[in-house]
Amino acid sequence: MSKSSIKNIGVLCSGGDSPGMNCAIRAVVRTAIGEGLGVYGIQKGYEGLLENNIRELNVSSVGNILQHGGTILQTSRSKEFRTPEGRKKAADILKKRQIDALIVIGGDGSFNGAMALHQEHGIVVVGIPGTIDNDISGTDYTIGFDTAVQNAVEAVDKIRDTANSHARTFIVEVMGRKSPAIALKVGICTGAENVVLPTATIDYQKIAGDIDRGIKRGKTSSIIIAAEGEEAGIGYTIQKNLKDQFHLDAHVCILGHIQRGGNPTPTDRLIASQMGHSAVKAITSGQNASATVYVNGKVSLAPLADCLRKKNEFDVSEVELLTSLSI
Amino acid sequence: MSKSSIKNIGVLCSGGDSPGMNCAIRAVVRTAIGEGLGVYGIQKGYEGLLENNIRELNVSSVGNILQHGGTILQTSRSKEFRTPEGRKKAADILKKRQIDALIVIGGDGSFNGAMALHQEHGIVVVGIPGTIDNDISGTDYTIGFDTAVQNAVEAVDKIRDTANSHARTFIVEVMGRKSPAIALKVGICTGAENVVLPTATIDYQKIAGDIDRGIKRGKTSSIIIAAEGEEAGIGYTIQKNLKDQFHLDAHVCILGHIQRGGNPTPTDRLIASQMGHSAVKAITSGQNASATVYVNGKVSLAPLADCLRKKNEFDVSEVELLTSLSI
Amino acid sequence: MSKSSIKNIGVLCSGGDSPGMNCAIRAVVRTAIGEGLGVYGIQKGYEGLLENNIRELNVSSVGNILQHGGTILQTSRSKEFRTPEGRKKAADILKKRQIDALIVIGGDGSFNGAMALHQEHGIVVVGIPGTIDNDISGTDYTIGFDTAVQNAVEAVDKIRDTANSHARTFIVEVMGRKSPAIALKVGICTGAENVVLPTATIDYQKIAGDIDRGIKRGKTSSIIIAAEGEEAGIGYTIQKNLKDQFHLDAHVCILGHIQRGGNPTPTDRLIASQMGHSAVKAITSGQNASATVYVNGKVSLAPLADCLRKKNEFDVSEVELLTSLSI
Amino acid sequence: MSKSSIKNIGVLCSGGDSPGMNCAIRAVVRTAIGEGLGVYGIQKGYEGLLENNIRELNVSSVGNILQHGGTILQTSRSKEFRTPEGRKKAADILKKRQIDALIVIGGDGSFNGAMALHQEHGIVVVGIPGTIDNDISGTDYTIGFDTAVQNAVEAVDKIRDTANSHARTFIVEVMGRKSPAIALKVGICTGAENVVLPTATIDYQKIAGDIDRGIKRGKTSSIIIAAEGEEAGIGYTIQKNLKDQFHLDAHVCILGHIQRGGNPTPTDRLIASQMGHSAVKAITSGQNASATVYVNGKVSLAPLADCLRKKNEFDVSEVELLTSLSI
Repeated sequence: MSKSSIKNIGVLCSGGDSPGMNCAIRAVVRTAIGEGLGVYGIQKGYEGLLENNIRELNVSSVGNILQHGGTILQTSRSKEFRTPEGRKKAADILKKRQIDALIVIGGDGSFNGAMALHQEHGIVVVGIPGTIDNDISGTDYTIGFDTAVQNAVEAVDKIRDTANSHARTFIVEVMGRKSPAIALKVGICTGAENVVLPTATIDYQKIAGDIDRGIKRGKTSSIIIAAEGEEAGIGYTIQKNLKDQFHLDAHVCILGHIQRGGNPTPTDRLIASQMGHSAVKAITSGQNASATVYVNGKVSLAPLADCLRKKNEFDVSEVELLTSLSI
Repeated sequence: MSKSSIKNIGVLCSGGDSPGMNCAIRAVVRTAIGEGLGVYGIQKGYEGLLENNIRELNVSSVGNILQHGGTILQTSRSKEFRTPEGRKKAADILKKRQIDALIVIGGDGSFNGAMALHQEHGIVVVGIPGTIDNDISGTDYTIGFDTAVQNAVEAVDKIRDTANSHARTFIVEVMGRKSPAIALKVGICTGAENVVLPTATIDYQKIAGDIDRGIKRGKTSSIIIAAEGEEAGIGYTIQKNLKDQFHLDAHVCILGHIQRGGNPTPTDRLIASQMGHSAVKAITSGQNASATVYVNGKVSLAPLADCLRKKNEFDVSEVELLTSLSI
Repeated sequence: MSKSSIKNIGVLCSGGDSPGMNCAIRAVVRTAIGEGLGVYGIQKGYEGLLENNIRELNVSSVGNILQHGGTILQTSRSKEFRTPEGRKKAADILKKRQIDALIVIGGDGSFNGAMALHQEHGIVVVGIPGTIDNDISGTDYTIGFDTAVQNAVEAVDKIRDTANSHARTFIVEVMGRKSPAIALKVGICTGAENVVLPTATIDYQKIAGDIDRGIKRGKTSSIIIAAEGEEAGIGYTIQKNLKDQFHLDAHVCILGHIQRGGNPTPTDRLIASQMGHSAVKAITSGQNASATVYVNGKVSLAPLADCLRKKNEFDVSEVELLTSLSI
Repeated sequence: MSKSSIKNIGVLCSGGDSPGMNCAIRAVVRTAIGEGLGVYGIQKGYEGLLENNIRELNVSSVGNILQHGGTILQTSRSKEFRTPEGRKKAADILKKRQIDALIVIGGDGSFNGAMALHQEHGIVVVGIPGTIDNDISGTDYTIGFDTAVQNAVEAVDKIRDTANSHARTFIVEVMGRKSPAIALKVGICTGAENVVLPTATIDYQKIAGDIDRGIKRGKTSSIIIAAEGEEAGIGYTIQKNLKDQFHLDAHVCILGHIQRGGNPTPTDRLIASQMGHSAVKAITSGQNASATVYVNGKVSLAPLADCLRKKNEFDVSEVELLTSLSI
């Protein structure tokens, strides 16, 4: 589809919500209107698209939303859209509404859906990486990560007060599924004594040794940050093993959904605004299947194909930094 | 012991830590010094007393602590002190140090220990109610409650973002053991659709009906606040029952120890400061076994004997208020 | 007007906005609907009433507002309403709309307007005290005070970081006009070395002496809390006098409007909810000119006539507490 | 001086304090000890160095400081150190203490001092950029910037509540002296209607036109972010001109020192930790006059000579982004 023929764009959020999505929506809407495009908000992700849950957005629709967490468009996961029939139906709905391009804010799963929609039905698509897990290939940053880390760090700072007051060990489980990103940054930023990453085998001997060494050098508490991995609850496993193997008592806190919400941090607001703006510019400049990415400290465009995988690597030097600073 | 003969006082925290304890310690220390008394900080509660873990505090010892959660004196629970032999040993240590009066910041258990120490060994004691649970008889307020509620409310505000974005039901479990105080105030202050109190039988029919009604009238989410009761984990029970009996999906968040920490709110700072000040004045004015209490909106003194029980009542009109406002 | 004849009520905010007003509005609307009444939101205070800026509110109109500062009804100050002609016009508009009772959320000025409307035109009125200044006669609390104090205390905590790092004196000017309430509570809660109240003559000799004494005993900083008084800017006067008379350097921070905004604290949410609920109950129980007040730690009803004056007294024991704890 | 001969290093903060300095100090101390070096904390910057205000730091000296704003080493500006005689004296003190290398956390002025000390007396120096203004050449980031922006954004979010409630225009003056960095990021992140940068001529016609257009399209408030420039107070000038030239009323808020303090954000904690670690590694690897910088999204080392100038440029595309999103 040539650049000039696009008249209307749609925007939706898909997968887990993340703080900053509203900033991206606001930037999409206002940039689109500034470019003379019509812009349609699709409620509840691909699910809502299939239900024709769509309304036109204007400049005021996105007023006073950039400071709030969550997403005014709501989000969901859709089974039907994962089928070719579902995507055919979605494409028909978009075409009937004369929506020629779709901006999808979400994770790698949402991007794969967008790519299929593009390949099978020629819809112009742009992906904006939005997930607190920071685990999408091709970008150093995904919207919501900074706020999630901020929420978790504030929580651990509070837990540290109690840990110090009782001379206790705490295991704090943070979100991120198989991504180590939240756990690692939270660990460094809270001075955690240990961090347990999702892909690693847990070295209980080392953890127990560190706790013991900490007590001997006069530390009043120990904090272990654990990435949740495939399923929440790993904190309890660690607790049991420390107790069974080393007679060490530890308390468990699973931070859970408090990490996802709240007012987005300035960094999330800025990057989300830049990405939303950039996504519309990608469409008006004739890109077909692209994604906004954050590379080398800047927002730019990349082929959507580069951003379809999960990314769970981490920089081992960051683990060393954590270890060398929490002595 | 006559008023004039008291030269030194001790101060300790006992039981769970609560934000604002540092404000009370600061007030005790500086008021005592202003009154010409020596003041000794006993580390780690009755346990530390039995270990003679005591140091003299001066004006600077408590500088820049009032804004921080936890307690610089640390706290603990002691088994030994619950025995007559333990208390005899504690009294001997105090007498040897010429500490004639003891200020105990803690809950009803800590107060019972103080009362026994007074009755068996003639130590002048004053109790300052410090627990986030707000469950001590004889006082409308205990230090830490306001901060705990604030922490929980901020957390639920964040969870509401995600709940709205996904059109979900969340069960948020708050602290307070058998006390309904935190759950009830948090429920009203977050516009929770339901609150489950520790003493009540859970009416699943009503909860399910409320969720259903909320969806029908267009609500984008439901939040149920559950008091932890005897043991953390009730949230999972509620989740299972809603699923099994009504096929309702709900997410669980156990807020846990993030409720205990963090900078104390102004209300906790003020009341703790007034109570710490008042506790020293009680000693210098010749009181024997008293407690600082908050009644009718003001800090005053009461017999310690009035404050030895747990208080788990609640005002049913507050439940009605919550219900009538969350329609 | 008899109890049974009231079918519709109006609600407006007047004067300066204060955090928690939204909670009161929500409580008014939902309680009224629960009582079978129609409820109308009047936008922009008496000004909006005179412009017939009125819309019916339903249960959803006040969804998801209790956690936000400001007021969805907006507020203003009106000159026209202060004239008998203005109030006649307002009463006519209300009557034409069949709004028989009016709930006014605001300060003493707003209450005087409500009282005149009642006396001159028989409109049933209820006042809900809403101002951050906590300066209305007849009630110990006004909605917004706790949040304003919280905002100011958080700000001073931050300023203390810099003050300590540079060994500086800071003068922090807080809101409250001629009311000493914010300044006094903030002073105690931040461990301020001095507090300057609006009605007192400023004793520069004492302030300079305190700073000097603090430095000698090893304090790393001094903070003076100044109530703004009639007009913002007193901080600069204090700064100049300390410099001119004692060669003391001090930095000035005027906290300004950051004190008014932000998510209301739990205490503001609770009391505002109770007051909004209680105001509607006052109407349905046949009260004519009443106000919701907070006395002895509880929300109750009082004659509106008791709440028409400004209250600028303070408890001198609180100043003594501040002084004795900041040694 | 060859790599192997360095046995002790000193660390100081200089110029204005910035949140995250404590993280850098902690990282310097613990990395140095891990490398087998002695490490000395110099209190109060170059001033304290000249006063021999130096103490050895150990692992525990920097425990529980990373979450707090300000700097435990305190900071200052020194006139004497700007003279060759002052630097000679400083070098002598360092040599007498066998401190062979000095890590300076501060801004461009502090770096110039370090460079002179290196050139004149052969002291090994490393600069760590620490200033909220983000205005040092050679690095994209300086410690404290993220927290300052976060503090300012939270404040403007609160002011927005009042602005909306009263349909007002607010001028919010932020820190940064001649650097546009804080103003620009805060402007984008708060959806400000205008931003006034320190180097630009103020286009009152445009500002007034924007406010007018906003009112016409239904906006409930306008916020103008103004960079303080050479001296605080520009907000009042803007207010006067809008009033005199366009009869527009606007309120002024000068955020002031609340921007400098408070718990550092995760980003400041992380980058400061990495920089502190990296600075010690620079010394042990034989660098002579280097600085830790943040370029392309990563911490690395650069010649100190690259970081001696103030940097006040800004990306004009960010102004365009702000303008296009605040329509």
